[in-house]
Amino acid sequence: MEINGVPIENTYAEAFPTWISRIIITAVTEEWALRAATEATGFATSAIGCPCEAGIEGILGPEETPDGRPGASILICASKKKLKEQVVERLAECVLTSPTTAVFDGLPEAAEKIAVKLHFFGDGYEYQKEVGGRKCWVIPIMEGEYVGEEEFGIIKGVAGGNFFVMGENQMAALMGAQAASETIQSVCGVITSFPGGIVASGSKVGSNKYKFMPASTNEKYCPTLREKVPDTKVPAGVTALYEIVIDGLDEECVKEAMAQGIRAACTVPGVTFISAGNFGGNLGPYKFELYSIL
Amino acid sequence: MEINGVPIENTYAEAFPTWISRIIITAVTEEWALRAATEATGFATSAIGCPCEAGIEGILGPEETPDGRPGASILICASKKKLKEQVVERLAECVLTSPTTAVFDGLPEAAEKIAVKLHFFGDGYEYQKEVGGRKCWVIPIMEGEYVGEEEFGIIKGVAGGNFFVMGENQMAALMGAQAASETIQSVCGVITSFPGGIVASGSKVGSNKYKFMPASTNEKYCPTLREKVPDTKVPAGVTALYEIVIDGLDEECVKEAMAQGIRAACTVPGVTFISAGNFGGNLGPYKFELYSIL
Amino acid sequence: MEINGVPIENTYAEAFPTWISRIIITAVTEEWALRAATEATGFATSAIGCPCEAGIEGILGPEETPDGRPGASILICASKKKLKEQVVERLAECVLTSPTTAVFDGLPEAAEKIAVKLHFFGDGYEYQKEVGGRKCWVIPIMEGEYVGEEEFGIIKGVAGGNFFVMGENQMAALMGAQAASETIQSVCGVITSFPGGIVASGSKVGSNKYKFMPASTNEKYCPTLREKVPDTKVPAGVTALYEIVIDGLDEECVKEAMAQGIRAACTVPGVTFISAGNFGGNLGPYKFELYSIL
Amino acid sequence: MEINGVPIENTYAEAFPTWISRIIITAVTEEWALRAATEATGFATSAIGCPCEAGIEGILGPEETPDGRPGASILICASKKKLKEQVVERLAECVLTSPTTAVFDGLPEAAEKIAVKLHFFGDGYEYQKEVGGRKCWVIPIMEGEYVGEEEFGIIKGVAGGNFFVMGENQMAALMGAQAASETIQSVCGVITSFPGGIVASGSKVGSNKYKFMPASTNEKYCPTLREKVPDTKVPAGVTALYEIVIDGLDEECVKEAMAQGIRAACTVPGVTFISAGNFGGNLGPYKFELYSIL
Repeated sequence: MEINGVPIENTYAEAFPTWISRIIITAVTEEWALRAATEATGFATSAIGCPCEAGIEGILGPEETPDGRPGASILICASKKKLKEQVVERLAECVLTSPTTAVFDGLPEAAEKIAVKLHFFGDGYEYQKEVGGRKCWVIPIMEGEYVGEEEFGIIKGVAGGNFFVMGENQMAALMGAQAASETIQSVCGVITSFPGGIVASGSKVGSNKYKFMPASTNEKYCPTLREKVPDTKVPAGVTALYEIVIDGLDEECVKEAMAQGIRAACTVPGVTFISAGNFGGNLGPYKFELYSIL
Repeated sequence: MEINGVPIENTYAEAFPTWISRIIITAVTEEWALRAATEATGFATSAIGCPCEAGIEGILGPEETPDGRPGASILICASKKKLKEQVVERLAECVLTSPTTAVFDGLPEAAEKIAVKLHFFGDGYEYQKEVGGRKCWVIPIMEGEYVGEEEFGIIKGVAGGNFFVMGENQMAALMGAQAASETIQSVCGVITSFPGGIVASGSKVGSNKYKFMPASTNEKYCPTLREKVPDTKVPAGVTALYEIVIDGLDEECVKEAMAQGIRAACTVPGVTFISAGNFGGNLGPYKFELYSIL
Repeated sequence: MEINGVPIENTYAEAFPTWISRIIITAVTEEWALRAATEATGFATSAIGCPCEAGIEGILGPEETPDGRPGASILICASKKKLKEQVVERLAECVLTSPTTAVFDGLPEAAEKIAVKLHFFGDGYEYQKEVGGRKCWVIPIMEGEYVGEEEFGIIKGVAGGNFFVMGENQMAALMGAQAASETIQSVCGVITSFPGGIVASGSKVGSNKYKFMPASTNEKYCPTLREKVPDTKVPAGVTALYEIVIDGLDEECVKEAMAQGIRAACTVPGVTFISAGNFGGNLGPYKFELYSIL
Repeated sequence: MEINGVPIENTYAEAFPTWISRIIITAVTEEWALRAATEATGFATSAIGCPCEAGIEGILGPEETPDGRPGASILICASKKKLKEQVVERLAECVLTSPTTAVFDGLPEAAEKIAVKLHFFGDGYEYQKEVGGRKCWVIPIMEGEYVGEEEFGIIKGVAGGNFFVMGENQMAALMGAQAASETIQSVCGVITSFPGGIVASGSKVGSNKYKFMPASTNEKYCPTLREKVPDTKVPAGVTALYEIVIDGLDEECVKEAMAQGIRAACTVPGVTFISAGNFGGNLGPYKFELYSIL
């Protein structure tokens, strides 16, 4: 299979379940909503070493938010136990503190809920109020009043959807990955949690040499080791590759993001191969076959 | 004292010691250096609920970095024990993973050092190399090779330098705070760790009503509680205020940031009062008198 | 009528016909498409002193462009005669020169066309090629090859749709205007051609004192002249106001932009009045009654 | 000569005199100053087809501007006759109309001045005032009052300083050009007027085939014509190149910009050759030898 002359490997991405909370942050302008959303989703690239995975799902117009203000939707992904703690801390420290923000549940239909009781910050001065049909707490603060919901739906979603963008040199592969990542930003229901949506240093589980390492470089995908690693997966002529990792609310939106991202990468000159990462299918319950999604 | 007709309260900001690491992140373009720096300094507004405080100190031109590429300098601030862990995790998860980055020590003269051994990620394929006079490790990764120093100087700096920007309404106070925060970005040696550099909901230590809370709203500075709190500190006519919180490498740069920030805020129409926060001088060893720094 | 407690004046915006060309600019990434689009739509705020009015209508995903790459759609508005010249010059100087761009007609159904013969730049080395069903010229250039259509549909659209955002002080009015302008960016078919989408200094036709001036300050809407101008239109308590000016492909999309923009402005604290500008209905054939569009 | 292993051709850039005005635009925040500056310097890439060449020279902190507010400095370059007209129109339409702006002369020491009488817009309500030691006019407008100087120094500067960034493929050359352009932004006294600071389609004077064309593609520098053009200047292995064009206040700052830009480009992997453009030295009085400036 080829797209725009770029060969697509007949393989699949292997992905895993994760618990996800979707939070709508509104503010006086889109700009301020994005500032809060960026801080709240920082230090959240990979569950390996970060307390969660998080990212901005999309920008919301005033017509799409409970309080009729511009907003951003973020996804926070973690194990069920860690998820609550992370939502609490990130909303308390990065959104409640941010100018003009309000917060609403982005998964109001979800059967399971977590409670995020920020209103104790009000020290007794807080009170309840309905905004756009949502039960909110109002907390007096320095800028005036903070408004926010405190129950957030959580669902079991998908983490680790992925594909590789390979190129004849590093800049071609990087621009291919950027085109992919930018395109995925417009797909509903997904995030790419790494900086700029791109992973430069994908890993394997564990380490052959250093037993204390939970993860280490995936030497089969290292172009500079191509001649040294017998079972290298780096095709001839590829000198750089990037991984796009996608977390999403369900399989459908991860598939859509993979398909759109791959197609975008294949329009970039110097991108020469597309593949995806898996662990032989033994670890993750989800398999996204590139040939069936494209 | 007045600046541009805006009264400045005769008070001081009280601040605390913190350990600081300064890390230089370079990349193929300034844009990519900033993407990594933004992720690495996210979820790091306040030591109260975040694992550290962190922010972007400034942008560096190619002439200012060890490898002659564009870069960004970040500060990470925490207790000594937490600092090492946070530098390790944030570099490993947010910078090593980010396209084209390299990492260098921004405090090479510091007497104390922390070791950040990312090279184990190389699983034996890593090797050493000198770059710009710095001893670096090179790790084969998917995009090619990651290059980075692994010893970082740490020094005892200052956390919690601050001032309040008060306004006749919320938007005036917010724009005043934004003008201040933007200006502080050009001061060397400091960061403002909150979203957009601004705190909307400053806190007091503990809580009167909820004993389990480590911090709660500072009701004396809440404009909507002005009539209800006998010892309110909100001047008549002020309906919103924001706090600018500054961490810095030493007292001098925190003073400079406070002075420049306050002056900038006072150029914004509708900003009507400037003050600063302290705990009566009992908690922090540093006092920044507004009248002496301005 | 009130929205969020903000009174809306029972008046209308008066608007005029204009000829419009819609051009799709694609590039290797959205970022590069936007850089070209920004340059191509600069110095184009008002037909009074600029050679045309122009702005970015929206961002296009790869699925929405003829060559499957990310893009931006721009509108260029002028008299029929000036329009062709402006499209030629702006595409030749600001888009053909910009990295990785291609250009397509955004109004392929339009009955009238203008010819924009950039291919002469190829000095005989140019050739024709079909891209996404569009007849294009390919021009060898330094970066490789430029690709572009050379026939562009033009239609008679609407210029000068508008409303006023008034506030209790300047920063409140400005943030209200910004919220409006940001929101309008997501409405299809329209642009706001002024910097940040906002006019700080709306004008009247001609000048009372200086006969050589084609336009001068609209003293009836100047808050600082409220006491001096007998027929002032500035309501009591308003100390600043901004005008949002909208050009669009048809009346429907201008109405939609006005409605969404006004609603967004009314969510901003300190915005206290909404009105619109007209010339008594004698000049423009279009009247947009605020009460009927909201 | 090589930099980072990239060969530098032993040649020179040929440049021309131009008249330059430097204008300081201040605003309530840096963000608003930049919005006005971007609009005012749009549609101004090349004197061939644009009414002038213009760009943002740099960002100014509050300490560097006459009114103590954040600002941006722009350069406008044209023939003496066109310069006045362009400064008038661009300030009148793109800066006076932009929220919260003020305007000051950035070349107060220059012997020659142009008068830019925006105050007639005030229709008699305008008045004079000193701001930061500058004689300004204050014009009542919708947002309140506009403040600006009306005499601007002009000097004879340099247009067309340049160099070529060549790469093994398009994305490598583009990222090299971007690294160069970003770096030049920090050099005082210069602008790069093309989109993103980069030219994708450099031209030669006139056309061999189409006599009516004032300029056409420079086939000697077109990689796709390398086999067809006998006197091609495209080195073997180069498949894309970009030109960086620099205008500056004097020869020194153009040299500095060229040197820093070239060095930055040479850090980007896949950049394989650096050269510069000239017309045999017959046209322009300035010659910038690459070997002497590096």
